[in-house]
Amino acid sequence: MAQEKKLVEAITSMNEDFTQWYTDVIKKADLVDYSSVRGCMIIRPYGYAIWENIQKYLDARFKETGHENVYMPMFIPESLLLKEKEHVEGFAPEVAWVTHGGDEKLAERLCVRPTSETLFCDHYANIIQSYRDLPKLYNQWCSVVRWEKTTRPFLRTLEFLWQEGHTAHATADEAQQETITMLNVYADFCEKALAIPVIKGKKTEKEKFAGAKSTYTIESLMHDGKALQSGTSHNFGDGFARAFGIQYTGKENQLQYVHQTSWGVTTRLIGAIIMVHGDDSGLVLPPVIAPVQLVIVPVQMHKEGVLEKAGELKQRLSCVARVIMDDSDKMPGWKFSEHEMKGVPLRLEVGPKDIEKNQVVLVRRDTREKIFVSMDELETKVPQILEELQNALLERAREMRDKKTFKAETLDEFERTINETPGFIKAMWCGDRACEDAVKERTSATARCIPFEQETISDKCMCCGKPAKHMVYWGKAY
Amino acid sequence: MAQEKKLVEAITSMNEDFTQWYTDVIKKADLVDYSSVRGCMIIRPYGYAIWENIQKYLDARFKETGHENVYMPMFIPESLLLKEKEHVEGFAPEVAWVTHGGDEKLAERLCVRPTSETLFCDHYANIIQSYRDLPKLYNQWCSVVRWEKTTRPFLRTLEFLWQEGHTAHATADEAQQETITMLNVYADFCEKALAIPVIKGKKTEKEKFAGAKSTYTIESLMHDGKALQSGTSHNFGDGFARAFGIQYTGKENQLQYVHQTSWGVTTRLIGAIIMVHGDDSGLVLPPVIAPVQLVIVPVQMHKEGVLEKAGELKQRLSCVARVIMDDSDKMPGWKFSEHEMKGVPLRLEVGPKDIEKNQVVLVRRDTREKIFVSMDELETKVPQILEELQNALLERAREMRDKKTFKAETLDEFERTINETPGFIKAMWCGDRACEDAVKERTSATARCIPFEQETISDKCMCCGKPAKHMVYWGKAY
Repeated sequence: MAQEKKLVEAITSMNEDFTQWYTDVIKKADLVDYSSVRGCMIIRPYGYAIWENIQKYLDARFKETGHENVYMPMFIPESLLLKEKEHVEGFAPEVAWVTHGGDEKLAERLCVRPTSETLFCDHYANIIQSYRDLPKLYNQWCSVVRWEKTTRPFLRTLEFLWQEGHTAHATADEAQQETITMLNVYADFCEKALAIPVIKGKKTEKEKFAGAKSTYTIESLMHDGKALQSGTSHNFGDGFARAFGIQYTGKENQLQYVHQTSWGVTTRLIGAIIMVHGDDSGLVLPPVIAPVQLVIVPVQMHKEGVLEKAGELKQRLSCVARVIMDDSDKMPGWKFSEHEMKGVPLRLEVGPKDIEKNQVVLVRRDTREKIFVSMDELETKVPQILEELQNALLERAREMRDKKTFKAETLDEFERTINETPGFIKAMWCGDRACEDAVKERTSATARCIPFEQETISDKCMCCGKPAKHMVYWGKAY
Repeated sequence: MAQEKKLVEAITSMNEDFTQWYTDVIKKADLVDYSSVRGCMIIRPYGYAIWENIQKYLDARFKETGHENVYMPMFIPESLLLKEKEHVEGFAPEVAWVTHGGDEKLAERLCVRPTSETLFCDHYANIIQSYRDLPKLYNQWCSVVRWEKTTRPFLRTLEFLWQEGHTAHATADEAQQETITMLNVYADFCEKALAIPVIKGKKTEKEKFAGAKSTYTIESLMHDGKALQSGTSHNFGDGFARAFGIQYTGKENQLQYVHQTSWGVTTRLIGAIIMVHGDDSGLVLPPVIAPVQLVIVPVQMHKEGVLEKAGELKQRLSCVARVIMDDSDKMPGWKFSEHEMKGVPLRLEVGPKDIEKNQVVLVRRDTREKIFVSMDELETKVPQILEELQNALLERAREMRDKKTFKAETLDEFERTINETPGFIKAMWCGDRACEDAVKERTSATARCIPFEQETISDKCMCCGKPAKHMVYWGKAY
């Protein structure tokens, strides 16, 4: 009964208080629990099942593109972290330090990995000798730690789960090609699996990864008009190779530095799913990554034959979808709310009258449309509706994003727009750091990326009026 | 060429120096590399692929038995670790302490989890209220850290990968049932997937897990006669529940403590595979968890049609096994050694003469038996031979273990036997800690377990001569 009562309390409306809405959803959909460790979350079974589906999908893509999984230590000795100057400056302020093992003070501090470039480089220096050893296409699934001051589940936590790809190539061209290939894998994944449309582009010098030659990103837009960096892919050139001495003997016997990349996505993607698709009834999950795609709710389930029929349908449909049946002793209305809160894409209701008519009612989570389907057609109809729903989510997200994407020719116009209607702003930029800083200072918006698909909004920088070099997507970011 | 040269150096023979043999195998089979972090290993792609297969197999069994995966923080605040007295005494001496985040000294030290009982208990106290919330059957795949003084890859490392199941139940009976169920899952897995026979039993009070009411274990025997604890399952009773206040309201409205279990296996299982099945040519992998089950080596591959045929066979056989083709420009003999070193269960050789005769040669890694098979029968023969090989490995391991299992009626006999022919020793014990300690002091052997299958070797304790309570498996352990 305690459990049922919780569901009665409606969650905060998105429009009223988006932050509170987000917090309500992650708690009531049983995605996370807060832990006794500041800034670290507990990912509960339902949340972790989403992550497992993300892993399964991406891991298959990584393997198809020739990558292999490895596991590196979670600790980095301080001296190793210090080897690449820009990298350490970027990360040292936000790492956790292990200083004692048991009762003993360590001779050298170890940091808990915030990212593993230095460890991969150290390993690559060991195992790469000849051009025959290249490319090395490695990936790792693990958790990393960054000592953040303020945290929010999935979006920014002290510890988070991610994958980090680390590759080494013979030539600069190959490294660049890998960087873009993996960015495309991420973009495809977001669109096809998560139903989240993304903008692909390059980060500015100011926003790029510590130690990278260039950083590429996919940026998505949340329901509240804030941008979310959803995945990044870095080309390191031979910077790390020079710092760590990663050289190989080429075909003509010449000694050369390798060229490297790294790329990663994190549990933050679950935050994106919530904030792109969710509504005032809770989570809305894209079928491709939903732990449960269809919930069967028997109606008047104590009437003869109802539970048997529901069980039979469950068994039949398990071949075409991830199905559960809810035969708990709650009222159907409670069950509807509960599974809506958890974002289950499709609900199947079956009661005595339906059985008489040899039909069931399917209800879509996104549109709440009721669809009457003959029991004989379920094996074809269910996957078909799930696919339609998946596509509809992407379409709706794209429309939402486009509606919240604006143009600005001057900084005044930019400021007015972003304050009135938060979203992406497309505006021209001269390429100078000073202008980028000025935009941030006045509006708190940052350059999200220089998109691959360039447009000409005007020919002048919106900030200084000098000739424009790039069209940039700007926005306030998570 | 550098790579080929490495293979020429034979590895140390097992009988000559088992420790060096082990080190040679893990390096030359590309399972691990040493890292710059003391006691932490790098698990390379081939080693990690074995772990992925172990994970896939076990994770499916966990889910079939109703368990769900979660993710807990990797840090435990000192005050949380201190809550259960025996537990903290067992683990505090061997944890890594985080004392600083960025530049800031932490108000409370955090340890890097050596195991997560305390975190799960803290969470369970939050989410368990009613009997309706039980049982909770959770599992977690992660890495843990124990500050060991001496380490060896896979067998004992500062950081290792594992899974830890943590469950909470309404009654003591249910908890005991879960403890034994999971021990059986492990034992089945070792026998069916890893082809490693195990002894199932209970740990003595001295050897049980810190904080457990009772610990159950599966013990296996390595080729050098040393025992390896291969998996453990603990019944905590309500000890942790009392320390952490995990109570639920029962059906009759009474407030009760839950009963808990935990159980785990680690990457140490890879060490067991190496030391049970390996030989002087390197690794021997059981087909069920081998990353590559069949390697196709084209012979005289520059002759017309050979590479095409080998490629065609690869495609055909990929439906029935995990297959690779080695068309690198090394000599076939080199390739044979290399894939033998990596323990690939089955090799398929195909050359011009074979093509003429419409046959191939299959060579088993374990027996080196050559089997001539018609090309038309490969889809049935390959899985059949792999299954035979899997069974033969288990049979051989069982024979090896039985040959190295001895009985002793007195401590003198015990000492003589274990020094002459290391292995398991079955001997009677009165149940007193003093005798257990005496055995260890004199022989360095420990009580591996009190097996479920009891025998009567004599009616007196081999140590003190008092009436015997149990037959115990003793051994020197990794």
